[in-house]
Amino acid sequence: MKVWKRIDPTVITRVGWRTVVTKTFRMPDDQQLEFQIFNPEDTQNAGCVALTADKQVIVARQYRPGPEKIMDEIAGGGVETGEDPRVAAIRELREETGYRPGKTVPLGVVYKDAYNNSTWHYYLCTDCELTAKGPRLENGEHVEVELLGIDDFIDNARQGRMTDTEAVFLAYDQLRKIQKQ
Amino acid sequence: MKVWKRIDPTVITRVGWRTVVTKTFRMPDDQQLEFQIFNPEDTQNAGCVALTADKQVIVARQYRPGPEKIMDEIAGGGVETGEDPRVAAIRELREETGYRPGKTVPLGVVYKDAYNNSTWHYYLCTDCELTAKGPRLENGEHVEVELLGIDDFIDNARQGRMTDTEAVFLAYDQLRKIQKQ
Repeated sequence: MKVWKRIDPTVITRVGWRTVVTKTFRMPDDQQLEFQIFNPEDTQNAGCVALTADKQVIVARQYRPGPEKIMDEIAGGGVETGEDPRVAAIRELREETGYRPGKTVPLGVVYKDAYNNSTWHYYLCTDCELTAKGPRLENGEHVEVELLGIDDFIDNARQGRMTDTEAVFLAYDQLRKIQKQ
Repeated sequence: MKVWKRIDPTVITRVGWRTVVTKTFRMPDDQQLEFQIFNPEDTQNAGCVALTADKQVIVARQYRPGPEKIMDEIAGGGVETGEDPRVAAIRELREETGYRPGKTVPLGVVYKDAYNNSTWHYYLCTDCELTAKGPRLENGEHVEVELLGIDDFIDNARQGRMTDTEAVFLAYDQLRKIQKQ
């Protein structure tokens, strides 16, 4: 199938602290159409499914202003300029939950939305330990750290109680394996 | 944990054909903060993991302007005002692929993003048959219908070749069961 040809101009619109990018494409039928795509181009995010040595999943419980609900999220957030996504995932885990991982393996890379410029890098962190310093939350972050059994964590994802369901998919077979060990 | 209290005003900003909603919240520390949330409030979407009687997954292959890649999506789209999400999922399947399901069961409801007002309703459609009329694409839709084996479909989700990975998670156990039948 043919890819669309992106053509000038690109228009950047800021609304508060968010960015909308208007991209124009020439489509396979030669029609030109504009699409508004959320977030700056090449936005990179990283997050981790993190477990303690006794197989408890470390969850960052927080209110989310899109759904307007308390969600049981995995730790994660934006990759800083020049930062390795793996380093960003581990940093976000430390900042949001106070835990540091023993071992970190990549789970995969996902585009969550057809109209969003963001890429998400996911990792599985095992043998996580609570550091002496604890969480270091940014302004506007209100996170409660919860430890959940693997079944409860998977059940949360199935019941729509987290916005990172795709990370649970990527970790699913390994979580089931860890349960049996 | 405390929910945040939403306070006036709500500001709606349109950028091209997209909407950004600025919501203000009083947070647990009494601070007031604004958040820009993408899409109109209560946006409902519906999609389906759809299989033929011979266990082929019906995929809507299309170029996506966020990732700027060809993705192997499930059929899906916006729920119209007053429309049942299940009806919307089946309508989108017919419009994008030309197939109609024999049986449709709900898989679950997901919020894909902490900063998006959208809710996604997913369904598993089995025994799908190609209708005489075929697909009816809207202006700007360029979809190629592909039939994939269940393993290839799951592998696409793992490799970041679709933006509906969470639907594959919700269908995963049932897809594995169908494979063994």
